[in-house]
Amino acid sequence: MVLHLGQIVEALGGELIGDPSLGMARISPLESAAADAISFLSHPKYQQQLSLTKAGCVIVAPAFRAAASERGACIVTDQPYLYFARLTRFWKQVTRPAGTTRVHPSAVIDPEAEVHPSARIGALCVIERGARIGADTLLYSRVTVGEGCSIGERCILHPGVVIGADGFGFAPVDGVWEKIEQLGAVRIGNDVEIGANTCIDRGALDDTVLADGVKLDNLIQIGHNVRIGAHSALAGCVGVAGSATIGAHCTVGGGAVVLGHLTLADHVHISAASVVTRSLLKPGQYTGVFPLDDNRQWEKNAATLKQLHGLRERIKALEALKQESNS
Amino acid sequence: MVLHLGQIVEALGGELIGDPSLGMARISPLESAAADAISFLSHPKYQQQLSLTKAGCVIVAPAFRAAASERGACIVTDQPYLYFARLTRFWKQVTRPAGTTRVHPSAVIDPEAEVHPSARIGALCVIERGARIGADTLLYSRVTVGEGCSIGERCILHPGVVIGADGFGFAPVDGVWEKIEQLGAVRIGNDVEIGANTCIDRGALDDTVLADGVKLDNLIQIGHNVRIGAHSALAGCVGVAGSATIGAHCTVGGGAVVLGHLTLADHVHISAASVVTRSLLKPGQYTGVFPLDDNRQWEKNAATLKQLHGLRERIKALEALKQESNS
Amino acid sequence: MVLHLGQIVEALGGELIGDPSLGMARISPLESAAADAISFLSHPKYQQQLSLTKAGCVIVAPAFRAAASERGACIVTDQPYLYFARLTRFWKQVTRPAGTTRVHPSAVIDPEAEVHPSARIGALCVIERGARIGADTLLYSRVTVGEGCSIGERCILHPGVVIGADGFGFAPVDGVWEKIEQLGAVRIGNDVEIGANTCIDRGALDDTVLADGVKLDNLIQIGHNVRIGAHSALAGCVGVAGSATIGAHCTVGGGAVVLGHLTLADHVHISAASVVTRSLLKPGQYTGVFPLDDNRQWEKNAATLKQLHGLRERIKALEALKQESNS
Repeated sequence: MVLHLGQIVEALGGELIGDPSLGMARISPLESAAADAISFLSHPKYQQQLSLTKAGCVIVAPAFRAAASERGACIVTDQPYLYFARLTRFWKQVTRPAGTTRVHPSAVIDPEAEVHPSARIGALCVIERGARIGADTLLYSRVTVGEGCSIGERCILHPGVVIGADGFGFAPVDGVWEKIEQLGAVRIGNDVEIGANTCIDRGALDDTVLADGVKLDNLIQIGHNVRIGAHSALAGCVGVAGSATIGAHCTVGGGAVVLGHLTLADHVHISAASVVTRSLLKPGQYTGVFPLDDNRQWEKNAATLKQLHGLRERIKALEALKQESNS
Repeated sequence: MVLHLGQIVEALGGELIGDPSLGMARISPLESAAADAISFLSHPKYQQQLSLTKAGCVIVAPAFRAAASERGACIVTDQPYLYFARLTRFWKQVTRPAGTTRVHPSAVIDPEAEVHPSARIGALCVIERGARIGADTLLYSRVTVGEGCSIGERCILHPGVVIGADGFGFAPVDGVWEKIEQLGAVRIGNDVEIGANTCIDRGALDDTVLADGVKLDNLIQIGHNVRIGAHSALAGCVGVAGSATIGAHCTVGGGAVVLGHLTLADHVHISAASVVTRSLLKPGQYTGVFPLDDNRQWEKNAATLKQLHGLRERIKALEALKQESNS
Repeated sequence: MVLHLGQIVEALGGELIGDPSLGMARISPLESAAADAISFLSHPKYQQQLSLTKAGCVIVAPAFRAAASERGACIVTDQPYLYFARLTRFWKQVTRPAGTTRVHPSAVIDPEAEVHPSARIGALCVIERGARIGADTLLYSRVTVGEGCSIGERCILHPGVVIGADGFGFAPVDGVWEKIEQLGAVRIGNDVEIGANTCIDRGALDDTVLADGVKLDNLIQIGHNVRIGAHSALAGCVGVAGSATIGAHCTVGGGAVVLGHLTLADHVHISAASVVTRSLLKPGQYTGVFPLDDNRQWEKNAATLKQLHGLRERIKALEALKQESNS
């Protein structure tokens, strides 16, 4: 399947310099693009690739108009990366149109659930009693939305997602755990995307809440009563423990852990694999990762690390002696 | 739906001070409770909230009888937190009664599996040949119980759980991995709860075993031949590698990793995100987490960490010189 | 069910010393084997167990022929561990023959998917449009293979696996995330095994690729455009971020994280729970784990760790003074 440059600028705007009938078979990165591919220059630091690429057409910012048009067709636009994002969406829409099936016949939908007529529900999904699925929301296959949970509009839930399993709540009684029933639900805003096999637990008494525009990657665990602010993005394998509050416009890197009952302010950014053990009330980038090393070096340093407090005492003692001998 | 205080003490005991016909619409924490909510004082440290709460009724210990009854209705009981746990169960039972369906028609149950008539099997579950599901056990939707695996009585398995996938066993032969078939099964005791998308692998030769009362949160990985003792609780995203043995009454914090072939004694507690690299034969709390810091501070300290062994040598050298100059 | 020693050597070779009609009811480790079990001595370091084991037959290397035959039946072979691996496969084949069903009737297979007639597809799997499943490949229950993704021959996919969910790709535009459609697919070679609930995302523009013989454990996240070389093995709960390239014959320990856009050479081995933050171009073992400690000790050392850079400066100052006083 081929898209013509004329078709692309008609749909997405931008100024085309080149032949509108030129056909593009794929979108490719600059370095691997062939003559049948359209590519993009997302950042000035890659500009030396512009003269080298074999792409049939390159999407560029106005500053690169001359350089790009010298080498072949180009589309000039103020935000090439955003243009690229929109091109991927146009591309998918044209080349892989969604089927006409709204609700796959194998999905199990409780008669007391509310599914908006424009929502699409994939094969083998389970939508329980009282759950609500908003307009234009897409559930891929094998998603469970538990009793009473609600999903907003234009959301995407990937296969295996579990919304509304019980939070992990038990009262310890004489060494045995007594279950605390989880009576809250999960409320998910609009334009939220949730990756494969990610789990979002229902609240204990109140609800677990994801605001509009939140993006969660695969295999993430969101505990009960967590609240995540608008447009925050969490990468794969992150765990957020119960009753943590994450602000708006935050990012959490892959494999990071946020402990329970903490608060992260808006615009807090957590590096991958870091463990958040206290509230972070100031925006900024936070990290806590043991540096990787050759195993032998690591063994030496790790062994010494266990004496670190003692080493500090020894430095203090040396300083005191020095002080003394100077006085 | 509303529960009356009289109904509650009739079902759960406790001494009611107040009007038994007073209706409660929900259970809420003290600080957010409105007049239609019942709340609880779980710990004396929250007692200043007692005078401030707007809750219609508060569950309290005998020591707070006077303070609580001054402000409105209360239920007096020796263990308010346990009473609360039981109230959540009563609440769910009354307000969200389980459906009458025992086995959802979409579940795929092998004719050679044994499902107790009182067990409930959710939509799109898979119960393979020779598997056994005990009395009063509840499988939510989309749970797989593999061939020959057994689940005890009164267990709860949340959506997406996989019991009895193959353990990760391969023999390296000239740079290629030859599969070792996993011939054991998984045996799970009574009163075990297993969170969404958690996986418990079958044993290689013997079985993987979870004792009575074990509680596992979501997205946990339990390797082959692991044994977990009674009433231990593991939080979300924990990984336990093959042949590890965890004692009874242990807790493992979210995101922690327990390496293979290790033994943890009873009453060992592992902090969240810690990595257990050796057996722990004494009860206690164990931790190993890189402290989180502002990214710039972390970079400085992490860089220095790689020289830690060298720093110790330099301290030694300074001490030796000092010794010398003193002698 | 019982296998006779004669049957075993007929199928798998090796020299039998003992009665071919002797029946074995199970395979067991040396230390727990009873008289009806066959066992194996995989490594000379376990040789003292040879005289103590009650196993009815032991698989040994030629060097242990005398010691083994003195105590009872044995099978002599050059590679006892490999023989054991093959015995597990023979055992499973004889004692738990696969059913005759090739495609479970509850599986949802798109008419435009290609499933090889010798492949087996478990209950409640979803195979989307344009996906291909190779010869002799086995999908357990509840596996999703997304649109256009391909799985090679003789692969095993465990329950809950998700192949071809969207990679995590968004363009930030004025504080909001715009979706970048993921137009690539996932291509998986031959003899690949993928553990329960593991997720492999489709590529953004190009494909995500797993070469022949790769083994992935449970609950692993593989980001978009990752490439994993032949015969590499990743343990449970590993996360590999987008566009990382892992060489051939690598191993990654459980819970480790590999950041995006990095390259790991062939024969790189990452210890469990380590975080790979830079490319590793030399073979070897790499580690980065905070050592576990008694919580009180950890607190002291972790607190001091935040002053580590400062401690180095203080050591420098002491050394400078020393230098001075010596000059």
